[in-house]
Amino acid sequence: MSILVVGSVAFDTVETPFGKADEALGGSATYFSTSASYFSPVKLVAVVGSDFPDEHIAALKGRGIDVTGLQKVAGGKTFRWKGKYEYDLNQAHTLDTQLNVFSNFDPVLNDGHKDSPYVFLANIDPDLQLKVLRQVKKPKLVACDTMNFWIEGKPEALRKILRRVDIVIINEGEAREFAGCSSLVKAAKTILKEGPKALIVKRGEYGSLMFIGNSVFSAPAYPLEDICDPTGAGDSFAGGFMGYLASTGDLGESGLRKAVIFGSVMASFNVEAFSLGRLSTLTLVEIRERYSELKRLTHFDSL
Amino acid sequence: MSILVVGSVAFDTVETPFGKADEALGGSATYFSTSASYFSPVKLVAVVGSDFPDEHIAALKGRGIDVTGLQKVAGGKTFRWKGKYEYDLNQAHTLDTQLNVFSNFDPVLNDGHKDSPYVFLANIDPDLQLKVLRQVKKPKLVACDTMNFWIEGKPEALRKILRRVDIVIINEGEAREFAGCSSLVKAAKTILKEGPKALIVKRGEYGSLMFIGNSVFSAPAYPLEDICDPTGAGDSFAGGFMGYLASTGDLGESGLRKAVIFGSVMASFNVEAFSLGRLSTLTLVEIRERYSELKRLTHFDSL
Repeated sequence: MSILVVGSVAFDTVETPFGKADEALGGSATYFSTSASYFSPVKLVAVVGSDFPDEHIAALKGRGIDVTGLQKVAGGKTFRWKGKYEYDLNQAHTLDTQLNVFSNFDPVLNDGHKDSPYVFLANIDPDLQLKVLRQVKKPKLVACDTMNFWIEGKPEALRKILRRVDIVIINEGEAREFAGCSSLVKAAKTILKEGPKALIVKRGEYGSLMFIGNSVFSAPAYPLEDICDPTGAGDSFAGGFMGYLASTGDLGESGLRKAVIFGSVMASFNVEAFSLGRLSTLTLVEIRERYSELKRLTHFDSL
Repeated sequence: MSILVVGSVAFDTVETPFGKADEALGGSATYFSTSASYFSPVKLVAVVGSDFPDEHIAALKGRGIDVTGLQKVAGGKTFRWKGKYEYDLNQAHTLDTQLNVFSNFDPVLNDGHKDSPYVFLANIDPDLQLKVLRQVKKPKLVACDTMNFWIEGKPEALRKILRRVDIVIINEGEAREFAGCSSLVKAAKTILKEGPKALIVKRGEYGSLMFIGNSVFSAPAYPLEDICDPTGAGDSFAGGFMGYLASTGDLGESGLRKAVIFGSVMASFNVEAFSLGRLSTLTLVEIRERYSELKRLTHFDSL
């Protein structure tokens, strides 16, 4: 089944200890849809400027991604982000953000979008996330991301979103900040009380935790020798997670756990290169093989 | 089979966001031997001053720990450590260290110690660790810990130790510092090249990684709602790990993986209270139940 993603398409300029990328294709919706496209059909809703090259659009289309919801604003400039990572690759340092056409982004869904059974609200203004949710008809599963900027700036709008989504996928610092407590287990309880059925906490190179009711699932990260660029890892994770769920429709806990592992797999590939260098060139065999490696990585015998 | 541990017995004064402990029983050999004693007989070699109360010695004896190697220096003062943890409980801030009798610690083994099949060299001067190793006869398995102080101050002595031990158990920052590289996977390769068969990297609330040849095992930490005091977690981990191995003699990879999980179990209990408050009051049923919880926590289906 198909997935609707609403988020950003951007040009990223990124420096890490291992190299540099200049105005490379990025953005939450780009990483998400590329990752999810290995599993399920994806419909992308985002906005770019007239400086956005047709070849990027052709590449997304080439992956089977429906780009009818990608608005191109005549005379506008595409969203740009500039960031730097030191040796601690878990921490991005933003050097510059130019919202450009993204500052007036008004996601209007067409009929094809409105019927989407799976919806991912990438990290955008929670008021826009709400606006999207009001347009979709009867989604089977809705997941969302957010960030500290909205946690601090629009906590009430964010609470409204949490009441309407099934799954929240955020990082560790965001979970602690939203809940206002240092214990991740307590923070998860606080967030789940707001409404969502599940919370997935991303912890970078340490993997992730999924909280559902009183159950916790601890998923590993794939131990890479070299991490080239962590940009987009979270959205690649969400893409693998949602993509797998939409391909099977198994929304029970065992299905969700497998989906988390596919998320971890896709994030691990993504960080191996700048931009979509690795994420866009995978084979299903490579993806399945890494899933099996994560199974071997974590196996220990029962008592 | 029995385990010999050589390390410190100390009084710790610790402050965390959750409370304070004054001159409470601590030290690497204390935590290790208490933890390991649930699985196997332990022989403790350490030094204390005449200020060390007999009731502490009686308590260790009461756990079946052989304390014939616990030297009591007449007129001397016991090693004291004072530290503080902020909300980031992964990071200890040392406020004061008084080595006292520990500064002249000269571990001399008796015949019972020399025959120990399992040996754990806790975090002490690598020259002393070497001195201990020269005294033991034909150990089946030797593991060691160390810290940044020795990595920076005595790298050559440490290298000698690494050539003679089977397993190194250190934390993430120490592994990176010893190898001089930020990639943990590369750091592990560098350390294994020095001689040991396996390296276990402790990552606090994120669990641990075990490297053996080209194989990696990712073990979870138990997600606790409240962590009261992390002091001694690493030594409790090592105690559970060595204790389990000595109880089964299974030194194959599947045995080592189970041992790592028992290490994680014992560390998770230890941080639930100050000093030995929780670690010394466990039942085997509780230990086995938490092992099974870690199994459920990490389970996901194969493809």
